[in-house]
Amino acid sequence: MAAAVAGEEEVTNRQVILKRYVTGCPTVEDMEVVTGTLRLAVPPGSPAVLVKNLYLSCDPYMRTRMTKHAVPSFVPDYVPGKVLDNCGVSKVVLSGHPDFKPGDLLWGVTGWEEYTLIPNPVFCHMINHREFPLSYYTGVLGLTAYAGLFEVAKAKKGEHVFVSAAAGAVGQIVGQLAKLTGCYVVGSAGSDHKVNLLKAKFGFDDAFNYKKELDLNAALKRCFPHGIDVYFENVGGAMLDAVLDNMRHRGRVAVCGQVSQYNLERPDSVDLFRLVGKHIRMEGFLVSEYAGEYRRRFEEEMARYLTEGKVVCVEDVAEGIEAAPAALVGLFAGRNVGKQVVVVARE
Amino acid sequence: MAAAVAGEEEVTNRQVILKRYVTGCPTVEDMEVVTGTLRLAVPPGSPAVLVKNLYLSCDPYMRTRMTKHAVPSFVPDYVPGKVLDNCGVSKVVLSGHPDFKPGDLLWGVTGWEEYTLIPNPVFCHMINHREFPLSYYTGVLGLTAYAGLFEVAKAKKGEHVFVSAAAGAVGQIVGQLAKLTGCYVVGSAGSDHKVNLLKAKFGFDDAFNYKKELDLNAALKRCFPHGIDVYFENVGGAMLDAVLDNMRHRGRVAVCGQVSQYNLERPDSVDLFRLVGKHIRMEGFLVSEYAGEYRRRFEEEMARYLTEGKVVCVEDVAEGIEAAPAALVGLFAGRNVGKQVVVVARE
Repeated sequence: MAAAVAGEEEVTNRQVILKRYVTGCPTVEDMEVVTGTLRLAVPPGSPAVLVKNLYLSCDPYMRTRMTKHAVPSFVPDYVPGKVLDNCGVSKVVLSGHPDFKPGDLLWGVTGWEEYTLIPNPVFCHMINHREFPLSYYTGVLGLTAYAGLFEVAKAKKGEHVFVSAAAGAVGQIVGQLAKLTGCYVVGSAGSDHKVNLLKAKFGFDDAFNYKKELDLNAALKRCFPHGIDVYFENVGGAMLDAVLDNMRHRGRVAVCGQVSQYNLERPDSVDLFRLVGKHIRMEGFLVSEYAGEYRRRFEEEMARYLTEGKVVCVEDVAEGIEAAPAALVGLFAGRNVGKQVVVVARE
Repeated sequence: MAAAVAGEEEVTNRQVILKRYVTGCPTVEDMEVVTGTLRLAVPPGSPAVLVKNLYLSCDPYMRTRMTKHAVPSFVPDYVPGKVLDNCGVSKVVLSGHPDFKPGDLLWGVTGWEEYTLIPNPVFCHMINHREFPLSYYTGVLGLTAYAGLFEVAKAKKGEHVFVSAAAGAVGQIVGQLAKLTGCYVVGSAGSDHKVNLLKAKFGFDDAFNYKKELDLNAALKRCFPHGIDVYFENVGGAMLDAVLDNMRHRGRVAVCGQVSQYNLERPDSVDLFRLVGKHIRMEGFLVSEYAGEYRRRFEEEMARYLTEGKVVCVEDVAEGIEAAPAALVGLFAGRNVGKQVVVVARE
């Protein structure tokens, strides 16, 4: 593989494309790694940037884009034969945009490929803290956990917080932020190893392996004898159903994701009438809404926590673009421990 | 039937009891009207009031109390062999409570029977506006529509509001309040007669008969080409599912009831991941939370609207306690037009 430098005419560009729309659980065969070429140029007069991709984020919600929807979602469905895209960390090779110059490190929406021409980098942001691993900008230095916990769920000191998929990219940060806020925090995860991680490394007050619990309702009652104020929802289905029975009056559910539901033809049924009796609020959110000054303040606050060791994170790093399909598929079997990233190139 | 007067020792007391726990759609055979007797007395030194019941409110949520729940809901399940209870209008016969005296008219929680001994009338309130039909205190002068629309959904001028079961007790008031606020308002109902009522009597901008629509999603798109800001949820299931596809960014769903779901073994499945992409908030509420000064201000405001003819209401009145079971069952077939009440006695 020739290293790309600005001015070179053409580079090979390996890409992960969607091979076909997915039914049920995605497999590596639903994707394909193809090798194309890319001319190193940006259209004259355009604000485009051409980037070299370094780290790609693997997120469960990507599965929802692998099905063709009659009603478009917040992000476009992937298209068979076309490259996938998602959040990642990249290095600017060429730029037609006044805010970015060659060599700048960015995080934001990019392609699942080695090089991406981003026509208008509105979802790209400068990386301000180079003292951390760059991959942190796909995880702990992303805003999802923070915005969901504080802006959507409005968690406050002394409250009882439950986090599902708690050893995952977002869950581990939610739990630590809730602890820093003075909450009582319990997480669920899908293996004893992850449960141990929650308690020993991330400082959760308690945790359980949902696969070993015969009765999720009973497990929640054991961990929350006085009920749940805040549920950070990452899984949906049976867990959400059990949680609703254990919420307190005026409890809040921040809906971040529903990983247990994405592979189903029809989602599991949940009795939503229970929102009424305890005045429960369920609210979804997208991290992209929290931008500008808010995001910049968050970045400084989280950088401080990381520097002081008040927040730690665990990443699961897959090596090379060829490993990306398996890394993504692995999320649905819970094979990842912590934030799943793919390193395409290290610099 | 002997008329009851204070001081008389004992009166006959016809009661509607639950005969058995209900599966599926309730029938009149699930209830029974029995005749007992009641001694006209309140325990000495207790704050109890003994009331004569005048109007009983029939509400779909009562069905949820006819099933035995493993996890208790916000109100206790009904018990086979025992009298039902719900909101109603009553007249005080005897009182051990300093706030109430014989002859006072109250609204609040009472039994489905001719006379009720209320041990502690914390959920009873004085009727301040006797110029309206007393039954209005089970409907239009109840706070459900108002609190749900303004406190929970936070509807504002210019917003697009959808109301399901819009010809029902709560829906008709929601629609009119939303119109008074300057919203664009559409309602759904289950007959052409009701649809006509919505447009001609209650001033909805548009309405549709959901039973005649082959595709609820298409019906909503037709009525809301630019999407829905506020959904006042009374039905659940397929309608909620279709609404979620038509909500605007930061839309709010005030969950008041889910009448289509109460008779099902398992609720219909609804894809809740759609809360995420458009940052939709779903929030349940109980009218009992909005008490004290707030409720008093509401009562004056609504009384003014009624006096000025800015809000009208349609009631469906069943005559006599024996008619109560059929009136309740009729809600699930949509037989009622407007607020379903049972008149037990007129004064």
